[in-house]
Amino acid sequence: MGKIVRIFLQEKKVSEEEIPKGWELLGGRGICGKIISSEVPPEADPLGSKNKLIFAPGLLGGCYVSSSGRLSVGAKSPLTGGIKESNVGGTAGQKLSRLGISALVLEGISKEPSILLISKDGVKFESATDLVGLKTYELVEKIKSRYDEKNAIIGIGPAGDKKLFLSGIFVSDIEGRPCRYAARGGLGAVMGSKNVKAILIDDKGANGISYDKRDEFLTLSKSWGKELIESRKVFTEYGTAVLIKIINELGGLPTRNFRVGSFKDADKISGETLRENALSRGGRMGHPCHPGCVIRCSNIYHDKNGNYLTSALEYETIGLMGANLEIGDLDAVAEFDRMCDELGIDTIETANSIAVAMEAGLFKFGDANGVKEALGNIEKGTVIGRIIGSGAKRAAETLGVKRAAHVKGQALSSYDPRCIKGTGVTFLTSPMGADHTAANILPGRTGYHFYDVDDDGGGVTSKEKKVEISRDVQIMVAVCDTLGFCFFVGPNLANMEFFAKLIKARFGYNCSALDLIEMGKDVITTEIEFNKKAGIPPVSKLPEFFYKETLKPKDLTFDIDEENIKKIWE
Amino acid sequence: MGKIVRIFLQEKKVSEEEIPKGWELLGGRGICGKIISSEVPPEADPLGSKNKLIFAPGLLGGCYVSSSGRLSVGAKSPLTGGIKESNVGGTAGQKLSRLGISALVLEGISKEPSILLISKDGVKFESATDLVGLKTYELVEKIKSRYDEKNAIIGIGPAGDKKLFLSGIFVSDIEGRPCRYAARGGLGAVMGSKNVKAILIDDKGANGISYDKRDEFLTLSKSWGKELIESRKVFTEYGTAVLIKIINELGGLPTRNFRVGSFKDADKISGETLRENALSRGGRMGHPCHPGCVIRCSNIYHDKNGNYLTSALEYETIGLMGANLEIGDLDAVAEFDRMCDELGIDTIETANSIAVAMEAGLFKFGDANGVKEALGNIEKGTVIGRIIGSGAKRAAETLGVKRAAHVKGQALSSYDPRCIKGTGVTFLTSPMGADHTAANILPGRTGYHFYDVDDDGGGVTSKEKKVEISRDVQIMVAVCDTLGFCFFVGPNLANMEFFAKLIKARFGYNCSALDLIEMGKDVITTEIEFNKKAGIPPVSKLPEFFYKETLKPKDLTFDIDEENIKKIWE
Repeated sequence: MGKIVRIFLQEKKVSEEEIPKGWELLGGRGICGKIISSEVPPEADPLGSKNKLIFAPGLLGGCYVSSSGRLSVGAKSPLTGGIKESNVGGTAGQKLSRLGISALVLEGISKEPSILLISKDGVKFESATDLVGLKTYELVEKIKSRYDEKNAIIGIGPAGDKKLFLSGIFVSDIEGRPCRYAARGGLGAVMGSKNVKAILIDDKGANGISYDKRDEFLTLSKSWGKELIESRKVFTEYGTAVLIKIINELGGLPTRNFRVGSFKDADKISGETLRENALSRGGRMGHPCHPGCVIRCSNIYHDKNGNYLTSALEYETIGLMGANLEIGDLDAVAEFDRMCDELGIDTIETANSIAVAMEAGLFKFGDANGVKEALGNIEKGTVIGRIIGSGAKRAAETLGVKRAAHVKGQALSSYDPRCIKGTGVTFLTSPMGADHTAANILPGRTGYHFYDVDDDGGGVTSKEKKVEISRDVQIMVAVCDTLGFCFFVGPNLANMEFFAKLIKARFGYNCSALDLIEMGKDVITTEIEFNKKAGIPPVSKLPEFFYKETLKPKDLTFDIDEENIKKIWE
Repeated sequence: MGKIVRIFLQEKKVSEEEIPKGWELLGGRGICGKIISSEVPPEADPLGSKNKLIFAPGLLGGCYVSSSGRLSVGAKSPLTGGIKESNVGGTAGQKLSRLGISALVLEGISKEPSILLISKDGVKFESATDLVGLKTYELVEKIKSRYDEKNAIIGIGPAGDKKLFLSGIFVSDIEGRPCRYAARGGLGAVMGSKNVKAILIDDKGANGISYDKRDEFLTLSKSWGKELIESRKVFTEYGTAVLIKIINELGGLPTRNFRVGSFKDADKISGETLRENALSRGGRMGHPCHPGCVIRCSNIYHDKNGNYLTSALEYETIGLMGANLEIGDLDAVAEFDRMCDELGIDTIETANSIAVAMEAGLFKFGDANGVKEALGNIEKGTVIGRIIGSGAKRAAETLGVKRAAHVKGQALSSYDPRCIKGTGVTFLTSPMGADHTAANILPGRTGYHFYDVDDDGGGVTSKEKKVEISRDVQIMVAVCDTLGFCFFVGPNLANMEFFAKLIKARFGYNCSALDLIEMGKDVITTEIEFNKKAGIPPVSKLPEFFYKETLKPKDLTFDIDEENIKKIWE
């Protein structure tokens, strides 16, 4: 078991404590939830001194098993006003694990802009006064020139400095680039409000990971890894962008601010096009978002001249900045992605917010220069930039736009809930707001399904079943998020059993799949309880237009029984 | 008992129903609450088709008794997301009462901009396409030229047309001017969202009010009226602006966005200055906000050249657009007031929102031209105008400003809660958000007290007592709001007894002061229950700065025990 390290920013003090009894199965999202729910007042201003920002690697973080190195970032969200956990790849999570840190808790507000340096020797506070306002790529270069290049860097861009609600927190990837994001929920604004520009994780000389039964662990891990390599090949080859054509064919790819479910230029922004461009220009497919992951769904994308442009170009970004803004040009979307990474903002929230600005007539659908102008406004901090920067829901309120795709104040990911209905149920019922990562229920018969839910293919499953499936998958995703696993490994029963074995081999204590499922339920219950106290009901509604308009071209409606959804957590 | 008239805007249909059994004591706020809580989905979009906008005169509306002619306007508020009742003088309430209408319920959304004409013959729908965008004074002139001049007009300005959250709903006064406002909660945006520009109330040929015992009613009313004339003289002479000097001396007059509690130029914007200017320029003090009110705290204010400028100039407007923006010039404030009335916006929300824009550096404190420019931006609908127009809380979120004085998303009235602590308790605990009208607990020893709370003078009362007093007064104000009485008559026990006698003489049924108090509790409970379902807890917190900073010059803190406040509704 690791320790909880608390950093009192105002006083520049640090304390350490053991993980409390009863938290033996917790890490990542689970630890974030426990700390937030018991320590952050539900009514606290998300950008005020009483919010806490937590970085927690998963329980199995740092271990020799594929896809387990994700880092959970938690706080009360400025977008939803509720609890938030957003997890991210990169190199920071595993380094924290190796330092024996289960959770890093930032408390209060630093008097001056700071960098925190975390190593086996403790926490050092350094000034970041000259770094505030820097875009992320330059920030990372400056930091590398001053500190050990091998440090993992966690940081925010100029949007986070400005506390814009669509700001995310980056973690440097294995190339040292600021391109992996704990993007959702406005956590970058929380970090900005704490006056912390970056956190460096230095694991030199760390104790590393010990195992109760190392060989057993490695054996388990090895065969599982092999299976993952086989079954996830399509992601290794095409990245998450493989979904563009699939979701488009199903009629659920958000187009023109969720007006239509398929995009005429889907081919131009597909995973297939991405692969072709990446490989022909010297970029790369099959890039891991964190060390040791065999799924390797990330990529490196070069521009037409063969120069590095961005990493990684994901389905969500392409769907929402491409189809949903009617930009049928992958290079343009790649440029947007780089700009978002430079500013330190969530591409999902940003794209939805720009769509709202387009509804208001400030920019035009289909106009890539307009999108760049919008992003330029965010960079400059103009009033228009601040409006877009406040997120889709608030931008719509300010601009008098009704058509804003959000739940609980957080924008929808790139799945129209009228088509991808199981994920729609997740949007409405996840304590996190509209997060596909909380349980993405994709059709199971396309060959690309994550969930081993064979019978959930394009309308095959009954509506009741979709609610059940969303609930079960949400619980198992909560387990993945707590152990540090990417949900791409599959939030299914077989994996719960496998995780239980890993935990036994790593820590020596007995634990069953059912124990893990109970833990997952408890994680979600804790989050829901916090939300209730913060005034956020367990089940939300979609914006009115999703109920009023059918989704072309397949004339789909969101017809999952409301009463059934309401009972999901009973 | 009157009837409920429902207007289905989309279908241009009307239905009528009797008041349900059990609602015998309800009118005004009470009826609004019952209808909203049982018919509006708590999660409904305040500007969507499922919200309902209700106009309800008080139970004793239209009767021959002073100060009973107020009109309640209710809906789910876009500012707070909770239930809202805002009441207003003018001539509409009494006319509705004379038409036998207890509640006018607007449902759905009109396909085209409309005027609704309410008379004894029913409801007529007329087009308002050419009136959309008009400022209120011109709107009223156009309407008068087309329809009977004697109609009461209920309407919205261009801000309501734009659905800006700080929009109010005006009711024409006895001069036919658009200057009485159901200002708070953003109800003008709700009316705008329904696509209704104005409602005309024509009571020609109406049945009027019948009394069970007319003579008894008139006898009761007469002696009470005399007493009111005597005891409220200071308001007749100086208007509500008499409070400027009093609150300033107590150290609770919001100055420079609630930084200080007294304003160096308080004298220049005081009730005394107001009276002097009004009388010397051909304006008027002692003007009634609705026919028959003997308190007559309203006024008519002329400019330096003796031309009509605005009516009425109230304490809240002067405190918040004067002291709180550091404008020590009553004529400038009167101009702001007129501009706000023209645009159809709440001076309280607007002033607080402009203060936020000043914090962000968009305008300067103390600069009257800056305030006009800000209001001009609202008129033009620029992005800055829309940001300010979204209200203080949202403007602060968008502009990245921490210092925004609001509770539940609605801006504070002109009392610093660190000084006027009882009203501070009301701000935190009223289902309406920061409304002084929910229970304004002013010191009782200044000679100007409303509440006959003798022992609540400047710190004399214990802190526990202030919570109790706020609760009791909130309940009795709910009674006043339900019966149609202005809370200036005094929400006290003696008046509850008096109201019970009036109800007996009017309707013939027995009712005691205790029955009314029970009714008041039920009104508030109904509101709190709706809010809970909408995710708004019964007790809120002030923004952080109110707890962190002491209020100069008297070094006051908001030191009412939080645990005690939390128990207020138990």
